[in-house]
Amino acid sequence: MNIYDIAKAANVSIATVSRVINGSGKVSPATRDKILRIIQENDYTPNAFARGLGMGSMRTVGILCANTSDLYLSEAVFHLENNLRKSGFNSLLCCTGYDRGEKENALRLMLSKSVDAVILVGSNYIESEDSANDYIRRAAQQIPVFMMNGAVKGENIYCVTCDDYTVSYELAEMLLTTGSKSILFAQRNNSYSTRRMIAGIRDACAKHGVTFSGEHIANCEVGVAGVIRALQEASRRVKFDTVMCFNDLLAASALKYAQQEGLSVPSQLRISGYDYSVLSLITTPLLTTVDNKVELMSQTTVNVLVHCLAKDLLVSQHTVISANIVKGHST
Amino acid sequence: MNIYDIAKAANVSIATVSRVINGSGKVSPATRDKILRIIQENDYTPNAFARGLGMGSMRTVGILCANTSDLYLSEAVFHLENNLRKSGFNSLLCCTGYDRGEKENALRLMLSKSVDAVILVGSNYIESEDSANDYIRRAAQQIPVFMMNGAVKGENIYCVTCDDYTVSYELAEMLLTTGSKSILFAQRNNSYSTRRMIAGIRDACAKHGVTFSGEHIANCEVGVAGVIRALQEASRRVKFDTVMCFNDLLAASALKYAQQEGLSVPSQLRISGYDYSVLSLITTPLLTTVDNKVELMSQTTVNVLVHCLAKDLLVSQHTVISANIVKGHST
Repeated sequence: MNIYDIAKAANVSIATVSRVINGSGKVSPATRDKILRIIQENDYTPNAFARGLGMGSMRTVGILCANTSDLYLSEAVFHLENNLRKSGFNSLLCCTGYDRGEKENALRLMLSKSVDAVILVGSNYIESEDSANDYIRRAAQQIPVFMMNGAVKGENIYCVTCDDYTVSYELAEMLLTTGSKSILFAQRNNSYSTRRMIAGIRDACAKHGVTFSGEHIANCEVGVAGVIRALQEASRRVKFDTVMCFNDLLAASALKYAQQEGLSVPSQLRISGYDYSVLSLITTPLLTTVDNKVELMSQTTVNVLVHCLAKDLLVSQHTVISANIVKGHST
Repeated sequence: MNIYDIAKAANVSIATVSRVINGSGKVSPATRDKILRIIQENDYTPNAFARGLGMGSMRTVGILCANTSDLYLSEAVFHLENNLRKSGFNSLLCCTGYDRGEKENALRLMLSKSVDAVILVGSNYIESEDSANDYIRRAAQQIPVFMMNGAVKGENIYCVTCDDYTVSYELAEMLLTTGSKSILFAQRNNSYSTRRMIAGIRDACAKHGVTFSGEHIANCEVGVAGVIRALQEASRRVKFDTVMCFNDLLAASALKYAQQEGLSVPSQLRISGYDYSVLSLITTPLLTTVDNKVELMSQTTVNVLVHCLAKDLLVSQHTVISANIVKGHST
């Protein structure tokens, strides 16, 4: 039994059935009773179509992330979905990969699906050239766009970011005041977060009179071997006694590099991670890392979304969440 | 502009517009042209609602998994979503947690959303008491249910599993023929997979005259500390020189146990993982683990789903995929 059958049985229009289901609009008490009786007699559950028809909304949010097999992103998606469900929203998931064109296509596809809003998860949706972010602004002309761990300025765009700059500054400063003489930064993709982290490290180094230039950034390919190779190359280019990594996976791979090169950690090489993932708890030595509060960020993103869709007047366009250093034994 | 506006502008019923959009049913050429012209003039993209209305399908598949922050499940979700998208399906995600009641509620909720099919990801949707799986059979009365890494018998239920039994038998046999005298199995939750793995280990032990009873199964709580505690308790109960683990995370935690107890791996304690996750590549020593082909399984699950929804006559109700042992340095 669907909404058509009910309309037919009640001898009314689909729109009338929809109004009764959604409790909206004027319907005579007699007609309402008749429709509700038919619904009950036929054990009909108004489905998503019917509700969508009635409200112009399926209470569905599109979640775009590069790759759920990334530790940080998968945890973010988990908490986002849970918080959205608690607020009565479905989560339509799309794993876009890291390619710029694919990301743009995925966003366009998501807009065609009548979602109420879209959440871009992770810092890799932001291009360094701001004009390249116009695809996000175009999307925001249609529905509100929420960015978790990325920030783009524009109408109808709401961002929740971690204060990567400050915590990276603090971590670099902590390292420089406890023995580090030169810092290498290991990253995988150039992203909004990496740029903020690099700025923090650069400023801390400048304060302490330590050189930190483009030479001190190692771009690592995928896989443990890729990280080892990048660090070997960097070591031929610059001297470093400390590797600050973009995430725990890179840091765990850097531990493998140290092992292979016969460098003892932390006495000969200090290594820090980022994300406070499960990896940081199982390496030897345990990683010094950064708790960037993925659960709190996910929850905050959903809160902002719920308030925004409810047309609340006071919705923060950019919420910044502070991160903490988690001291391990690798630094 | 929505389907109502088009119907109004063309002075036809919504059903007629829907038939034109979906290219189904009889519509006079004149009416069809008129509707198409209005659609083009207004730059109207038939949205998911409209398509849903017309075809009784939104080409949406519900993906249920316990927790995307689990390494295996998050990778499965990534590959499932990618393969579904390539086949033109949306993925509605629901992370249900491990509680039986929550899983049942989540499945019921998903059914109310007019999905074309549902995929249950991971072995923890199956209860050991088969009658407790009736909630899956009830769901299958409404839409096809696909299980990845779990198997329940029933009409309209299609399962893709890994041959956990055989690979566990082979791994146990390999260990027993290369020095292991007694095996402990470390698990977190009792699931379809663990039961198959335990059966394989038990049979290999029996063949080699090695005792393997309930005493040789350690139930680990969440977290590294939980695993260490469980192994300490087990060591007071039984002697073991080998720990076979349900997944790589448990194995990585077991390495921490060995470290804490001053046991050298593999000479004093041999440890194996499962899932061939990123963890197995960053531990020291590298883990011996099992590649249970999560990508192939995800792809196969989507293939079966696509053929099933296309009403192909030849659809395998249970596909079993073989796993490989990946030899590391922890055994």
